[in-house]
Amino acid sequence: MSRVFNFSAGPATLPESVLRQAQAEMLDWNGIGASIVEISHRSDEFIEVAARAEADLRRLVGIPDNYAVLFLSGGATTQQALLPLNFAAPEQVVDYVVTGHWGRTAIKQVAAHAKVHVVADGGPEYRAIPARGTWQLSPDAAYVHITANETIQGVEFRDVPDVGESPLFADFSSSIASEPIDVSRYGVIYAGAQKNLGPVGVAVVIIRRDLLDRAGQPRADIFDYRSHAARDSMLNTPPTWNWYLAGLVFQWMLAEGGVEEFARRNAAKSALVYAAIDGSGGFYRNPVETSVRSRMNIPFFLPDQALTERFVTESGAAGLLALKGHKALGGLRASLYNAMPVQGAQALVEFMGDFQRRHG
Amino acid sequence: MSRVFNFSAGPATLPESVLRQAQAEMLDWNGIGASIVEISHRSDEFIEVAARAEADLRRLVGIPDNYAVLFLSGGATTQQALLPLNFAAPEQVVDYVVTGHWGRTAIKQVAAHAKVHVVADGGPEYRAIPARGTWQLSPDAAYVHITANETIQGVEFRDVPDVGESPLFADFSSSIASEPIDVSRYGVIYAGAQKNLGPVGVAVVIIRRDLLDRAGQPRADIFDYRSHAARDSMLNTPPTWNWYLAGLVFQWMLAEGGVEEFARRNAAKSALVYAAIDGSGGFYRNPVETSVRSRMNIPFFLPDQALTERFVTESGAAGLLALKGHKALGGLRASLYNAMPVQGAQALVEFMGDFQRRHG
Repeated sequence: MSRVFNFSAGPATLPESVLRQAQAEMLDWNGIGASIVEISHRSDEFIEVAARAEADLRRLVGIPDNYAVLFLSGGATTQQALLPLNFAAPEQVVDYVVTGHWGRTAIKQVAAHAKVHVVADGGPEYRAIPARGTWQLSPDAAYVHITANETIQGVEFRDVPDVGESPLFADFSSSIASEPIDVSRYGVIYAGAQKNLGPVGVAVVIIRRDLLDRAGQPRADIFDYRSHAARDSMLNTPPTWNWYLAGLVFQWMLAEGGVEEFARRNAAKSALVYAAIDGSGGFYRNPVETSVRSRMNIPFFLPDQALTERFVTESGAAGLLALKGHKALGGLRASLYNAMPVQGAQALVEFMGDFQRRHG
Repeated sequence: MSRVFNFSAGPATLPESVLRQAQAEMLDWNGIGASIVEISHRSDEFIEVAARAEADLRRLVGIPDNYAVLFLSGGATTQQALLPLNFAAPEQVVDYVVTGHWGRTAIKQVAAHAKVHVVADGGPEYRAIPARGTWQLSPDAAYVHITANETIQGVEFRDVPDVGESPLFADFSSSIASEPIDVSRYGVIYAGAQKNLGPVGVAVVIIRRDLLDRAGQPRADIFDYRSHAARDSMLNTPPTWNWYLAGLVFQWMLAEGGVEEFARRNAAKSALVYAAIDGSGGFYRNPVETSVRSRMNIPFFLPDQALTERFVTESGAAGLLALKGHKALGGLRASLYNAMPVQGAQALVEFMGDFQRRHG
């Protein structure tokens, strides 16, 4: 068995030590004679796993006590649908800043339950974030929504925008815990875990508690964040194995030095790859405005489709997995989440240089 | 390491061979140099895993081609909330038959989006299913909903009720694939996988395709079964690892002889335990009417609380895990899903006899 460097945009690479621990515990967790995936979410054993994961995430991300932390199923998309149901009155205006594909998708989840106002839209190319001065904020928006990092276009907010009175809600699926953030600047932060937090199948929702007092709209109990918060995310059977694996990833991140250390590594990895692109004399291209280039996902392009396909094939053979770009953009894409070691970025850059020498 | 007999009501015991395969493949699935939990849901590799799981489930349960099969996150409870959004017009009547705790919970998910009519209610004790002749069906119900097996009260439909014109929707979370069923008698069958189908974190929804033409109610794209069906359950990132593990369980069930074989085993296991209860001279009691006793979940009671606690402690020490009853009922409960071997039921019965000899 030989592990590759896996540049998948998500589900994404996991720390090898975490996978080894999950493997070792697969048939017998902590000597109980059963797997963690086989026991009740209401058992003392799982409740301890769940509580530790929450405590570790709070420490890792720096989540203040006046924020609830939920571990839920359904990914980020489901949370996008729950935002207006929980936090907007029927027909109330909600403000959306669109800086790429996922911002557009978020709006599809909201239109049935709120009046969506697009504050600013970086489309159709999404190579920059519209300047804050151009945003047309609504005076009475229930919230203002941004996508902190766009995984397809590779555009990332590098500052927290000031949006005035309305609380700022942010999809942090692909950049949570990748660097220090000031949680208190946000009303809601949500993230599917399958990029920086580890496994697919669980989402994290961080909610300033006073927002839970909002009436929202008529909704099923299972769609009510208050009910989930009141039951410590065990309103129904949560995705226990996924939650457990996320907890192992949190332990690993803390042991490695926390978000400050990952901020250094992520800056170093992305700097390596952008330097290789920008130094290639135009053989490789990334079209995103430098100030908002993503540290997590780097889309890049070769002169033609034949070379692109050859790059995918040859890089795969060289042990660099999943560099094919998203179908919406084509080209190539390297995702460099927390679990991607600096050596992975170095291997990619070496391969890029070699490929250019052979085909440039 | 010594594996116990695990009687958990869910998340529940899994076949040891499935856990061993998942363990062996944890760091490197099929020689790709990465885990199945680390690769894109849109990769050729995962799409093949997903398609095989669906094909195997169709074969296992006997699902006709005019039914869509979805693999979704959110468990059964989320599906309960989606039923009226997808299949009832606003304020249309929906008929619910309540035969236990989960039937009542289902209604909590529906009340915001449809007019709930309780057709029949076996409460407060839920020891029998109200006779079909007493049901007050609505003439224009969008659907009639039943809970095929109630995991807490241990009450199971042993026949498919005739409900006339309205399609029959059934929560099969705790009894799907435990015996042959005639899928064509149902409009929708749904099930959280964490009992008979294997792992927590994924739900299966089986929908007669003509029902997908119903307009339903305004809803987010992610809450629209049509969108999920059109995208083969990959509208967003599905819980890939859980889906994969369910697929391994399906392969195991087919290899063991399919639902006919599990019907035999489940009948044998539950007969053993009920015989031990009924033959105990009143030391053990199960209050459910014999004709609707569940084959999957057997609640039983001892003369007092001190004995009950002693039973939980001593059975745990004897390698019989999770026999404590649900907090709503107290007492004891043995869950006997497909992955519980007949030897597990035998070991339980032996322990019950021994316990009675010592404490009866």
